[in-house]
Amino acid sequence: MVKKISLLGATGSIGTQTVDVVREAPGQFKITALAAGSNIEKLREIIRETGPEIVSVDKPEDAAALKQEFPGTEFVYGREGLIDVAAGSDADVVVSAVVGSLGLEPTIEAIRNGRDIAIANKETLVAAGTIVTEEARRNGVALLPVDSEHSALFQSLNGETPGQAERLILTASGGSFRDRTRAELEGVTIEEALAHPNWSMGSKLTIDSATMMNKGLEVIEAHHLFAMPYDRIDVLLHRESIIHSMVEFTDTSVMAQLGTPDMRVPIQYALTWPDRFPRKGTDRLDLAKIGSLHFEEVDLERYPALRIAFEAGKTGGTATTVMNAANEAAVGLFMDGRIAFTEIETLVERVLDRHEVISKPDLGTVMEADTLARKCVLDMVK
Amino acid sequence: MVKKISLLGATGSIGTQTVDVVREAPGQFKITALAAGSNIEKLREIIRETGPEIVSVDKPEDAAALKQEFPGTEFVYGREGLIDVAAGSDADVVVSAVVGSLGLEPTIEAIRNGRDIAIANKETLVAAGTIVTEEARRNGVALLPVDSEHSALFQSLNGETPGQAERLILTASGGSFRDRTRAELEGVTIEEALAHPNWSMGSKLTIDSATMMNKGLEVIEAHHLFAMPYDRIDVLLHRESIIHSMVEFTDTSVMAQLGTPDMRVPIQYALTWPDRFPRKGTDRLDLAKIGSLHFEEVDLERYPALRIAFEAGKTGGTATTVMNAANEAAVGLFMDGRIAFTEIETLVERVLDRHEVISKPDLGTVMEADTLARKCVLDMVK
Repeated sequence: MVKKISLLGATGSIGTQTVDVVREAPGQFKITALAAGSNIEKLREIIRETGPEIVSVDKPEDAAALKQEFPGTEFVYGREGLIDVAAGSDADVVVSAVVGSLGLEPTIEAIRNGRDIAIANKETLVAAGTIVTEEARRNGVALLPVDSEHSALFQSLNGETPGQAERLILTASGGSFRDRTRAELEGVTIEEALAHPNWSMGSKLTIDSATMMNKGLEVIEAHHLFAMPYDRIDVLLHRESIIHSMVEFTDTSVMAQLGTPDMRVPIQYALTWPDRFPRKGTDRLDLAKIGSLHFEEVDLERYPALRIAFEAGKTGGTATTVMNAANEAAVGLFMDGRIAFTEIETLVERVLDRHEVISKPDLGTVMEADTLARKCVLDMVK
Repeated sequence: MVKKISLLGATGSIGTQTVDVVREAPGQFKITALAAGSNIEKLREIIRETGPEIVSVDKPEDAAALKQEFPGTEFVYGREGLIDVAAGSDADVVVSAVVGSLGLEPTIEAIRNGRDIAIANKETLVAAGTIVTEEARRNGVALLPVDSEHSALFQSLNGETPGQAERLILTASGGSFRDRTRAELEGVTIEEALAHPNWSMGSKLTIDSATMMNKGLEVIEAHHLFAMPYDRIDVLLHRESIIHSMVEFTDTSVMAQLGTPDMRVPIQYALTWPDRFPRKGTDRLDLAKIGSLHFEEVDLERYPALRIAFEAGKTGGTATTVMNAANEAAVGLFMDGRIAFTEIETLVERVLDRHEVISKPDLGTVMEADTLARKCVLDMVK
């Protein structure tokens, strides 16, 4: 049976790699719905290749122009358009790959409409993890991780009896600046930050890898996806990014998923789960050729963003929402050349310090906290 | 529910570690039947600790003497005694941990009587893999691997759809002589061969590790347990013995089981499967402390026993029976100081060269081929 896919964030890094996966597995998938922002040129290519029924874009004028070009496709736009594509189509699985907390509302709507979610948008779980996982449980919907680390954890938990996992061990490459000391981070450029040693990713994610806020977001995501307390989630530096993450069980056994770093593998797994499908386009792992794998403890002094994320996670409620929103705003400022790299963490921590945590927020409260945190960051650098 | 265990080979390395596991998991297991050979002193301790219903030993006089000491326990002896303990008790699972092809007959009898088998006696599968796996299928019996490598493969296949494993990757420490060249193996002593760097094992197994015949036996065992063709079974040198083995799937994902080298972990897993049970007595894996893991290709020129095993496996039928029996006999001669270390492989290969393979042997034919191969080895060194 062909699996129907609704793809949110089609022109981004995960989006285009999802299109690769669909192309490379003929007869397995059909992309029936697409959402993108304003990269219309890339979107046009993807529409031509996949022939979706419905497409959402940011602006009404883009929707109108595309309609001229593709009269057989329905075009919608804006917030409602995104929700339409997420929840309204007949997709079997929604790939939520928009970047940032923009992905929250459409993901929740898709869950409420009973769609399985391939979740690449980690901010959704960081901003509103409790709400999202409760909605998923209530609607009998699977949350299928796309992040390589969470896919590894998910695969390591495969077939195991719930409650017998003792500890999640997320591996971290260390990002673009892993060989620099904290002092050497002063004055690094955007270009330097964007040069990730192992993975090909979007730019927000690459900056988050350099601060290791990305690993912090992943810790929070893992907490929600696998219902694991924070004191049983470890982060381990592993520069080769070959072991994608591990689960330690009560009997001391550790299960791990390994592979060459290629996001198309976890994307495909989320789409074929609980089965697998042959992949031709990915290099097989050759450990003899790699020779050795290295592991180090993470120094939380060196990577304060990771410490901040653990603390926000343990605090819970709106703390992770605010941390995530402040980080998105601060990364934006760094990308715009308005703040230094090390100010990203400082700003996030300052915003968190000012925030009065609400412990069991509803979706409205989450979105309000998100907006306020962004504003707060901008105010601080005025 | 307390799981009842029949333990064959109670006084050996796996046997005593099985007793450890039972002791360390109070309320989980009860050893109701025991079989041992002639280490009566050790057996006495185990009887005292476990209070079994029935015990088998090699010699009638030992059985009679023990009966005086433990009047509440039934004592049997010899080949029939071993079969009684394997098949006749009311055990839920039979731990088959006798060393060598002696384990074959009782294991098959236990399978025919519908007992699940925790299989630590790899020679059973090497000598008669097709017969054993067919009997297991016919009787709806689980074959639960106890070898750390096969337990790792078994755990890596957990929850996966059958037929989607692409390749089994067995890791090998390289044994006691891994840092010596082929030439440097001339004249090594029994004591040197028995000093395994990672694992605490019985002596036959330690010698087999040094020749890497052990890995060859494991390849054949894996072929039978997981129905995998030989050209999709790889051996990878991994000196730390932390990754216990791996499975590569069709989507290029590799699942692995890791842990500190402690046989009690896979023994316990075979007994608790499909569940896990907390282990206190085993050190948790600390990869940051270990620092790095190393991998190398195996040189079949350096380890001819592994090449011989692959060849015998591909030939099939009585070839693996003969290889195994010849190896047991040759290892015996080395332990008795009658041949040099490197003659073990030479003898095995010479016996195999002379053997006319019977492709679909029944159990009688297997046992006959086994006996003849041993005799052939002894004749060669007269």
